[in-house]
Amino acid sequence: MNKFKKVLKEINKHKNFLITSHINPEGDSIGSQLAFLYLLKVMGKNARILNSGKPGPKYKFLPNSKKILTKINKDTRYDAICFLDCADIKRIGGIYEVIDLSKPKINIDHHLSNKRFGNVNLIDSRASSTAEILYILFKEAKVKINKETAICLYTAILTDTGSFNYSNVTSFTHKVVSHLIDAGVDTNNIYKKVYEEISPSAMRLLGSALSTLKLSPNKRIAWMQITKDMLKKCGAGLGEQENFINFPRSIKGVKIAILFTEIAPGKIKVNLRSNDDIDVNEIASHFGGGGHRKASGCTIKGSLAEAKKKVLSEIKIAPFAFPNGAYTKCRI
Amino acid sequence: MNKFKKVLKEINKHKNFLITSHINPEGDSIGSQLAFLYLLKVMGKNARILNSGKPGPKYKFLPNSKKILTKINKDTRYDAICFLDCADIKRIGGIYEVIDLSKPKINIDHHLSNKRFGNVNLIDSRASSTAEILYILFKEAKVKINKETAICLYTAILTDTGSFNYSNVTSFTHKVVSHLIDAGVDTNNIYKKVYEEISPSAMRLLGSALSTLKLSPNKRIAWMQITKDMLKKCGAGLGEQENFINFPRSIKGVKIAILFTEIAPGKIKVNLRSNDDIDVNEIASHFGGGGHRKASGCTIKGSLAEAKKKVLSEIKIAPFAFPNGAYTKCRI
Repeated sequence: MNKFKKVLKEINKHKNFLITSHINPEGDSIGSQLAFLYLLKVMGKNARILNSGKPGPKYKFLPNSKKILTKINKDTRYDAICFLDCADIKRIGGIYEVIDLSKPKINIDHHLSNKRFGNVNLIDSRASSTAEILYILFKEAKVKINKETAICLYTAILTDTGSFNYSNVTSFTHKVVSHLIDAGVDTNNIYKKVYEEISPSAMRLLGSALSTLKLSPNKRIAWMQITKDMLKKCGAGLGEQENFINFPRSIKGVKIAILFTEIAPGKIKVNLRSNDDIDVNEIASHFGGGGHRKASGCTIKGSLAEAKKKVLSEIKIAPFAFPNGAYTKCRI
Repeated sequence: MNKFKKVLKEINKHKNFLITSHINPEGDSIGSQLAFLYLLKVMGKNARILNSGKPGPKYKFLPNSKKILTKINKDTRYDAICFLDCADIKRIGGIYEVIDLSKPKINIDHHLSNKRFGNVNLIDSRASSTAEILYILFKEAKVKINKETAICLYTAILTDTGSFNYSNVTSFTHKVVSHLIDAGVDTNNIYKKVYEEISPSAMRLLGSALSTLKLSPNKRIAWMQITKDMLKKCGAGLGEQENFINFPRSIKGVKIAILFTEIAPGKIKVNLRSNDDIDVNEIASHFGGGGHRKASGCTIKGSLAEAKKKVLSEIKIAPFAFPNGAYTKCRI
């Protein structure tokens, strides 16, 4: 029996479901949960989505996003829990303490690092997104993808592929998207909702941050900073700087980009991005942080100047990952 | 006979071809010309590409881009001229004076405004790009798209759709892209070449420009400026600010974005973008400029302050285009 059929078989065993995903949910986790909610509904099941936090404002346009709960009554009944786009069961956040994790678990994800904690695991790290896996599940279940669900799946794929540009995109990704558009998705409208509703304060903060841009003498490391003062002056809140790291990262020749943000006096958040085979996760780990090979972060106690000194001297000899998984240290 | 067959029939009549496109060629014009060069070659023809200018540095990775000529010998023989992605014959630039326009003309384009100046016209304004039309032409000609040509067509579609996000994208666009990836395109690599080779000076200039961001009281008009001093301070050249206008344009609620650039003392270049049904072409025309409904520009003599005053007071009552083509004036 293929993995998809196993999931459907497990679904058919139960009546009431809880759907969840990782904390700080983004496009793929929100879109996939909403699409899965629809699938269960069509399959005649009761289901609700429970997350540790509400979706960010830019995802409020997703059909049924209001149905995402952050609390449930203690007597809410569920026979099984479905985890979407969640590599580790502990990543569900605060609700980890609230829900009954002894129930059967269905685990659907595309992260290579997925811990296969489910009773049934549908994991495919070749998929661009969890939504891409769900697309096949809908086909396998012979459930027609309606317009609302197509919007959710499309948004999930759009955001998890950086608008179809990350290395996780395959010809199948575009094939799926083609079908989703046929199901009625207005792609330009979704693009505007997701990427073109930036606040004036965030735009000003980006300007200020870019004005602090620095490059190492060999131009391979680029960094910039955001101080508490800059946030205040621009009227911006923390969180508005989320994607700024992509700007130094996209400079020609840059291999590592860093954003230093003063999140509290004496507390510096460090975001790291790698353009290459350099493993910034190793660098973040050195400071008690973590993430992925190409995107990682940590928090350092001290002043901005101290945090910069520490991180930049750690980077000088950077961990380099060969495609076969072997490591070395290289001077960058 | 369908339009595609007509083009192939016309090609088969001749032996030697000149291929050209509009001035300041971008992704679609360069990619389409190179793909068409390959098609003619497989069809057993002699062909060369002649443009009024060389491709920009970011397109140099396109296979055979070095074959794009900007000059030809007077005795170069050609029996027909192929125009790719060129809405108006005069848009070919300086070579208009050089080449023999009495030769048979094959005109392949996706612009709605195309003047159908060819002896054979293959125009489809529903296509996202000229490359998308060429994809069908390859199928019709039964010519297999090799990897090099797939790279050219993919880059053309990527750039003409703003990474698959403009309203010109259809389910067919993604279907074509899916096939191009199957032909061997490394999409992530192309993305990096096209969008992630920004110079440090351009990045600094963006920071400075964003620091000048202003919004009208109702937040519907956003503008920023670049002075000669800013260019000098950032070590940036004119041309590096090309896409900056997309930043104010992507602010939530903004309907018109404007970039004022001091290109010479007392000479201000004005770039205008509309997010809505407001026709910025009308506004640019008022100052002797032009372009498209949603993207237009003009040059104004005077100081930055004068140019801003003139343009902003013209915009107050803006031309609004209804979907049916009717116009009105609206206060924005």
